[in-house]
Amino acid sequence: MKLHDGDVIVFAGDSTTDADKRNTSDGLGNGYVRLIRNALFAFHPENNFRVVNAGVGGNTSAHLLARWDRDVISCKPDVLFCMIGINDVWRHFDYLDPQDARISVEEYAENLAAICEKSKGVREFYLIPPYYLERNRSDEMRVMTEQYADRTRAVAARYGITVVEVQPDFDAYMNSRPGQSISWDRVHPFEVGSMIIARRILQFLNC
Amino acid sequence: MKLHDGDVIVFAGDSTTDADKRNTSDGLGNGYVRLIRNALFAFHPENNFRVVNAGVGGNTSAHLLARWDRDVISCKPDVLFCMIGINDVWRHFDYLDPQDARISVEEYAENLAAICEKSKGVREFYLIPPYYLERNRSDEMRVMTEQYADRTRAVAARYGITVVEVQPDFDAYMNSRPGQSISWDRVHPFEVGSMIIARRILQFLNC
Amino acid sequence: MKLHDGDVIVFAGDSTTDADKRNTSDGLGNGYVRLIRNALFAFHPENNFRVVNAGVGGNTSAHLLARWDRDVISCKPDVLFCMIGINDVWRHFDYLDPQDARISVEEYAENLAAICEKSKGVREFYLIPPYYLERNRSDEMRVMTEQYADRTRAVAARYGITVVEVQPDFDAYMNSRPGQSISWDRVHPFEVGSMIIARRILQFLNC
Amino acid sequence: MKLHDGDVIVFAGDSTTDADKRNTSDGLGNGYVRLIRNALFAFHPENNFRVVNAGVGGNTSAHLLARWDRDVISCKPDVLFCMIGINDVWRHFDYLDPQDARISVEEYAENLAAICEKSKGVREFYLIPPYYLERNRSDEMRVMTEQYADRTRAVAARYGITVVEVQPDFDAYMNSRPGQSISWDRVHPFEVGSMIIARRILQFLNC
Amino acid sequence: MKLHDGDVIVFAGDSTTDADKRNTSDGLGNGYVRLIRNALFAFHPENNFRVVNAGVGGNTSAHLLARWDRDVISCKPDVLFCMIGINDVWRHFDYLDPQDARISVEEYAENLAAICEKSKGVREFYLIPPYYLERNRSDEMRVMTEQYADRTRAVAARYGITVVEVQPDFDAYMNSRPGQSISWDRVHPFEVGSMIIARRILQFLNC
Amino acid sequence: MKLHDGDVIVFAGDSTTDADKRNTSDGLGNGYVRLIRNALFAFHPENNFRVVNAGVGGNTSAHLLARWDRDVISCKPDVLFCMIGINDVWRHFDYLDPQDARISVEEYAENLAAICEKSKGVREFYLIPPYYLERNRSDEMRVMTEQYADRTRAVAARYGITVVEVQPDFDAYMNSRPGQSISWDRVHPFEVGSMIIARRILQFLNC
Amino acid sequence: MKLHDGDVIVFAGDSTTDADKRNTSDGLGNGYVRLIRNALFAFHPENNFRVVNAGVGGNTSAHLLARWDRDVISCKPDVLFCMIGINDVWRHFDYLDPQDARISVEEYAENLAAICEKSKGVREFYLIPPYYLERNRSDEMRVMTEQYADRTRAVAARYGITVVEVQPDFDAYMNSRPGQSISWDRVHPFEVGSMIIARRILQFLNC
Amino acid sequence: MKLHDGDVIVFAGDSTTDADKRNTSDGLGNGYVRLIRNALFAFHPENNFRVVNAGVGGNTSAHLLARWDRDVISCKPDVLFCMIGINDVWRHFDYLDPQDARISVEEYAENLAAICEKSKGVREFYLIPPYYLERNRSDEMRVMTEQYADRTRAVAARYGITVVEVQPDFDAYMNSRPGQSISWDRVHPFEVGSMIIARRILQFLNC
Repeated sequence: MKLHDGDVIVFAGDSTTDADKRNTSDGLGNGYVRLIRNALFAFHPENNFRVVNAGVGGNTSAHLLARWDRDVISCKPDVLFCMIGINDVWRHFDYLDPQDARISVEEYAENLAAICEKSKGVREFYLIPPYYLERNRSDEMRVMTEQYADRTRAVAARYGITVVEVQPDFDAYMNSRPGQSISWDRVHPFEVGSMIIARRILQFLNC
Repeated sequence: MKLHDGDVIVFAGDSTTDADKRNTSDGLGNGYVRLIRNALFAFHPENNFRVVNAGVGGNTSAHLLARWDRDVISCKPDVLFCMIGINDVWRHFDYLDPQDARISVEEYAENLAAICEKSKGVREFYLIPPYYLERNRSDEMRVMTEQYADRTRAVAARYGITVVEVQPDFDAYMNSRPGQSISWDRVHPFEVGSMIIARRILQFLNC
Repeated sequence: MKLHDGDVIVFAGDSTTDADKRNTSDGLGNGYVRLIRNALFAFHPENNFRVVNAGVGGNTSAHLLARWDRDVISCKPDVLFCMIGINDVWRHFDYLDPQDARISVEEYAENLAAICEKSKGVREFYLIPPYYLERNRSDEMRVMTEQYADRTRAVAARYGITVVEVQPDFDAYMNSRPGQSISWDRVHPFEVGSMIIARRILQFLNC
Repeated sequence: MKLHDGDVIVFAGDSTTDADKRNTSDGLGNGYVRLIRNALFAFHPENNFRVVNAGVGGNTSAHLLARWDRDVISCKPDVLFCMIGINDVWRHFDYLDPQDARISVEEYAENLAAICEKSKGVREFYLIPPYYLERNRSDEMRVMTEQYADRTRAVAARYGITVVEVQPDFDAYMNSRPGQSISWDRVHPFEVGSMIIARRILQFLNC
Repeated sequence: MKLHDGDVIVFAGDSTTDADKRNTSDGLGNGYVRLIRNALFAFHPENNFRVVNAGVGGNTSAHLLARWDRDVISCKPDVLFCMIGINDVWRHFDYLDPQDARISVEEYAENLAAICEKSKGVREFYLIPPYYLERNRSDEMRVMTEQYADRTRAVAARYGITVVEVQPDFDAYMNSRPGQSISWDRVHPFEVGSMIIARRILQFLNC
Repeated sequence: MKLHDGDVIVFAGDSTTDADKRNTSDGLGNGYVRLIRNALFAFHPENNFRVVNAGVGGNTSAHLLARWDRDVISCKPDVLFCMIGINDVWRHFDYLDPQDARISVEEYAENLAAICEKSKGVREFYLIPPYYLERNRSDEMRVMTEQYADRTRAVAARYGITVVEVQPDFDAYMNSRPGQSISWDRVHPFEVGSMIIARRILQFLNC
Repeated sequence: MKLHDGDVIVFAGDSTTDADKRNTSDGLGNGYVRLIRNALFAFHPENNFRVVNAGVGGNTSAHLLARWDRDVISCKPDVLFCMIGINDVWRHFDYLDPQDARISVEEYAENLAAICEKSKGVREFYLIPPYYLERNRSDEMRVMTEQYADRTRAVAARYGITVVEVQPDFDAYMNSRPGQSISWDRVHPFEVGSMIIARRILQFLNC
Repeated sequence: MKLHDGDVIVFAGDSTTDADKRNTSDGLGNGYVRLIRNALFAFHPENNFRVVNAGVGGNTSAHLLARWDRDVISCKPDVLFCMIGINDVWRHFDYLDPQDARISVEEYAENLAAICEKSKGVREFYLIPPYYLERNRSDEMRVMTEQYADRTRAVAARYGITVVEVQPDFDAYMNSRPGQSISWDRVHPFEVGSMIIARRILQFLNC
């Protein structure tokens, strides 16, 4: 992919993208978005880019769809990455009180399709399927995450959208070490996982 | 088991026992030890008991052995519960930097035996094998935890010590809900898990 | 009594119920309501319950009546416990500045009756008479508390409502130790008293 | 009694005297000692007095005796007031954990006598018997407090020491209002009780 | 003067009356008003009084007049004390930036008269002339304060209002010690001066 | 006077010199010393000077003498200014508790002479008599301050030390405005008074 | 120039003028404006002046023009100093994200002219060209700053406005020391630079 | 270069290396060291490395030499990077008070040589010459920095040590944007500069 001078690059998603952005003065958070911004600025000073963090912690695909126009489209993105779905899955596992936040795999696919519909005017749009930091393929949350990730790929295929895969990068890592070495809850990528995500996306940005 | 008036009841272990005790003015922490203390006082006001929280967050069996005389025996316990081992296991999974905290299953058994040797004069001594809040029996950390728990049982048998089992209680719970509904990291019991542990121990205390 | 899956269980009352709920992120407070919630979740994971703390510190029966529709009925309770009245009594004893918060025993009975009227559609409704942690039966505040508690029982009888008694549990405790060992002011139950109340209510909930 | 220019006036006791003195920059606390100091300074500017707060919260007669030389005699008091004993009583009522702080009435009398022995060189020495803010004469803590207060009077008589009575002032107050209107726990005098104590002592100081 | 049961007693004025009332949970401040309230409650428990602190730091007579209806009359005072004027004087001395807060002695008299007009329905109304804690009678701020105090007396005479004098009490004190021993700025009464003011007013209240 | 490159310039004194220096990262305080330092650096960048604030709040001449070797001489001052005495005076006026901090005018002169003895090796030594910000010449603290200031001048004359006068500068100011416009307590110079002192000293430093 | 009694003196500009004024209780900031205010008050107590800090950190000429009526003209200045332009320059050098804050030299001149138009009724108006604390005349930001400063002078000439130059004062300083000794970023004047600016302006104010 | 499993990798230097490490719980700081650690862990999970941040803010070569044995050699580094010298230069530019921290270019070379002597046993040792973020080659601090950097290269050559150059990377960046876009003071690399340094070093680490 080729970035153009003046491009607006937006990253939409959940807490992995958000990375505590409210506590950073420039709103970029402390995760992979910041790493990408810094790399772009460091190694492409000849261009001006505007990088936007449009992640919100705790978001499911339903939350993200509800704020898509306001938070994403309103930025007029030229390049857009969207990684969503792990909270759709997680709410099936971590609930105590009854709650309505669980999103079925069908609803997830519908939400994602609606997001794609709304984004048809974006020059470059990438979908990143959700990942899970557990190498046991029979783990029930890993199994469910893969079902949702398959839907991400199916929706992307339907809309002709490029998919950026990060689970394989994490699987390569987990050949050597358990996913818990990156993340207590096997979801939040923390420092090391953010770098893995950032390097993968930067490859797509040719940086 | 029969408690006697004036009994000193000590709970030794790791963060599950500790439960942030440094931030509680009476040093009892916010976990199962507090629940047990309150139940004993509420339902046996005719007796005086001294309840001591001797847990320290992050402890492996090696740490606990090193402080056993100073922190446990010095209290002159009449009744003693010891739950240790999950950190011996966990350090095989969550490390980033190289470290020496991993305790092999053999070393774990030796540490536990040494603890039992030092505790021969205690009137009532109970060992609680470590548990793990994941119902997938093939999960690698669950598998390893069970190996260590088997050693707990073996050491207990050798010394004629009663074993208090909590994993079956958690497994019963996990028939209905994933372990993640109790605990993000599947180790710390938080409120609901603490109540499960407390009720099991109170049964042994006839309270 | 039999809880049903999906039941909404509401506890209404004063500071004994409230237990500083504004400073707990889930609004359950630090008292008997939390203990009951945790026990229900720990030992009945096969069901979903919604537990609501509808206590407000300092409430008399007049305050509670005034907010009954908004705070209690609006939750659509299936199971409802109401313990109110000690502040109606207490304001006769602890005032310095002139105030209108003292509720006479007649007004108390009227308020309680009005609460019962409004709650006719609730499947299970329990009244808990106020208690006082002083074993001297001639103590003037204990005497007055008992007058109000008698009215609780009378109103309950009129409406066919089951009464949950906690004063006998506290009296059993006070056979061994003064009420001051639980509570400086003989009203707030703190940790030990909360456990006594919780166990009594859990018995009604078959948990 | 006649104060002399330059007199050192010391008040020894427990939390009623202490009144959170560590949080006041001049170490006088926020109780009756401050009121007396201010009145002496306001209405006798022609003299210089040194006023010392030698109260420590939680003290029994045993604690006070142990620190008498260091905290009281070392000030070289010309005028000395000592009010001690309510914690000797209270520890029989408010304990949860086993403890050794309960002082029997005999030990109380011995401690007080030892204090008097050590204070023979003080020009003016006053003993203030402990009081309790409950008007029910059959209240068990009031009954016990009066037993200790009788011993205060007996020891004072033996050593020819003047007794300053404050219980009668509080009883006069309690003819109109319950003791709880002054104090939740019926021990700490708070603002209104401190003024009652201060006025009584100031009468002895002719101020 | 005779207080009646149920009387509302209001103290209006500037910072001497206010005494940091916003930082006291009951709004009484830490000055003479609190001392009077406590004395009334301690020694007249047979009656109920409502005591209101209507002082505001920094107020001149113009400020007080502007808020008289809202802050004072709205309380429906039965007994009312008003001490105002020292800021009218002080602004002639302590200004750096140009300001309009200086109130001439004529304007002061007019403001005070307007206050008296508005207060005709109050059962007991007392005016307290401003005082200054400097014993040098030629001190320019003392001289000006006395001019304003004379106007207080003149207005009081015109309206038949009783005057409560505190300057003589302070002058008696200053026979022995400089005013600076009470107050760095010779205006704020701090602890010792507040006691002098309170005792004088309590004399009028027969307490 | 002529400053030399590399000169160490020390200002010794009380709170007027100190000016809260502990809360400034470079230890210069917020008063006249900082203004002088900044002016020297701004207008004489061709030279290097080391400026030291050796003032300590609350110091009398006795305190200053006691720390003279440690705090002043140890800096090896080339140029030294000393302004001390106002606390020797003030303690006669602002005391409540008995204290020994009052320094008589004779003792003041002796302390100052001892300071001069110890400072004979200093190339340039200046004494600044204490000042008082009250224009009423009959004010008792002004009268006493002038007595001490006269002693400053006498000691200076005896040792051949130049005197820097600031009272005349303040008197000139007070022809137009009361001293209270600079300072509530008429001692601390705050911002405006610090500028007056700094300009006077800078004149001696030819800056 | 001759100041008149009652003059309102306003300083408009950017952070050099602002000097963190929001964190100073009187809104004067901690920079040259405060020094000028203090000098005027200290040495001209016979007059009343109102000094206003109308600087806002980060302002370019466009920002200042936008708020000129609201922040400057509304104060009705008699004497007005305006130093603006360094941010117009700086945004060409320190940007990371794309931004619109860069002001071209033509736009700068237009903004300044518009400011002059709006200020025709001000009795005394001074323009201070921007300065830069780098003595290397080939430094690219110094070169650009001088281009803007030349426009300041040109606009001033067109409107007959007196120019106050501070760059020559800084250049004199920089003959001896690098500009970095005053300022890390070579823009903010900090303490020493503020004194240089203040003395230059005070010369115009004959103080 | 080839990293070995178990390698200890140490980065020694000044604030660029330190990057506020005291405020990071793992002592790695927030600069290039953290980026390198994270990349090594993310992309080489098959190996264990220990990464040590041995930078200290404000260090010159003299400071670093003084602590070399204690802070660096004691870690037994297998791989060692050392970037030092910019503070040796900077102290010639930013001083206000006289100070001894300026290190001449000769002393710098001697310090660096001493460091190399002490490090002969280290398997892989790299020197990084100091850089300066100003593209004007005539800037006096850039000129001086280059003189010191030349000495770094000369010492490295003498000891056969590989040099890692970062100034060329920054110069490439500065072809497009001024150095001020990275750094206000042109020394501290902040986020973007840290990424440039990290990528250059990671190239040497084949990561």
